Amino acid sequence: MLEGPRVVGAALDRHAALERVYVGTGAATAFAPLVARLHGAGVSVVELKEGVLEKVGLTRTPQPVLAVASAASLAFGPIAGTGAVVIAVDVADPGNLGTIIRSAESAGADGVVACGNSVDLHNPKVVRSSAGALFGVTVMQADDPMDVLNTIGASGRRLIGTAARGGARYDEADLAHPCALVVGNEARGLDAAVQERLDVLVSIPMAAAAESLNVAMATTVVLFEAARQRRLAGVDR
Amino acid sequence: MLEGPRVVGAALDRHAALERVYVGTGAATAFAPLVARLHGAGVSVVELKEGVLEKVGLTRTPQPVLAVASAASLAFGPIAGTGAVVIAVDVADPGNLGTIIRSAESAGADGVVACGNSVDLHNPKVVRSSAGALFGVTVMQADDPMDVLNTIGASGRRLIGTAARGGARYDEADLAHPCALVVGNEARGLDAAVQERLDVLVSIPMAAAAESLNVAMATTVVLFEAARQRRLAGVDR
Repeated sequence: MLEGPRVVGAALDRHAALERVYVGTGAATAFAPLVARLHGAGVSVVELKEGVLEKVGLTRTPQPVLAVASAASLAFGPIAGTGAVVIAVDVADPGNLGTIIRSAESAGADGVVACGNSVDLHNPKVVRSSAGALFGVTVMQADDPMDVLNTIGASGRRLIGTAARGGARYDEADLAHPCALVVGNEARGLDAAVQERLDVLVSIPMAAAAESLNVAMATTVVLFEAARQRRLAGVDR
Repeated sequence: MLEGPRVVGAALDRHAALERVYVGTGAATAFAPLVARLHGAGVSVVELKEGVLEKVGLTRTPQPVLAVASAASLAFGPIAGTGAVVIAVDVADPGNLGTIIRSAESAGADGVVACGNSVDLHNPKVVRSSAGALFGVTVMQADDPMDVLNTIGASGRRLIGTAARGGARYDEADLAHPCALVVGNEARGLDAAVQERLDVLVSIPMAAAAESLNVAMATTVVLFEAARQRRLAGVDR
């Protein structure tokens, strides 16, 4: 479920398969351009009677526009491309996972795999905080992180773990060639079994006093460093 | 007001001047190590009767630990250092401003100035999303953005504006020497008067389909590029 006119519009921008859209009383008028786009895309728009939206929406303040999208296959499989992918292991917070997906799309990454005990990709807060990016970049869900690491490692991507401290400088690692950024749980980071499987562990140098960035911000920084290195190496524009 | 044991702990880490801490029923036991640190720092801890916390806290789910910090002077004035500062003009969302402050501290920036119609630095959501960084990096509030730009520009910092598109590549700009990153409103960006006063406008290249990063994420990316350039230039470790 997609909540809010902005996310619904962003999903349309990315040609997401929307099954149906529900709008609250008066919203068809207030969001006329969006409704016209939905009609143009062949999506049926249902106007809800007063008071219904409040019972359907999941946010505290009900959003005037809700959409239901068909669940695309999120099964883990081969990932095309020669850029970076993100492997999120046990990322628990939906806002963090959504932000990682948004950054991955913006930075031109090849995909995001959520595995282990990571929050479900269909979680409405993941959808919302991805700001539509869920429909613009390959996303997959898998169970066993070791399976994912083995498969992606075998496909020729270097496995680059990220840790709050103790790793090599992230900007001195080669991020221009096929790689997977492995990011861990908000509180515990990456567990020992995952760390052993990595090709390299990197960290972002922090100013002395500061507590580390959260996992979404750190992943954003590393993803854009990868994009920068790829432009510099001439593999991307 | 600081809400939650993590923010209160982070403020203590940074030697924030806490006036008093209020804890809910049972929280003094549940958060005994934090309470011991507070006593050690000479901060008085008041246990609230059942039901009181719910009326005082500002979050939907009341936090078990609240602190009141004396409002430090946030008046605009000279900013020490030779690194980057952030000038936030009309940044409206408290989560964005808090995240910018958190990134500024982590990246070793010299300060953050919130001006124009930016959200108040005392806003509890700014405090919360800064994760204590509000007490670890210089933050100031000012009214007229042009005054801020003129004063900081005259102090020898290059004024580097950020825009979703149309600017020079951010990683090709010189961010190693004294500069101010000027970031604008979430919806409107930087207005014409501000843009005219800039030395240069930069943008982060985006993968084709993607909508731009939000202002907090974009600022994070540019701040860590500045830190990277400074390490490379040998001005920072």
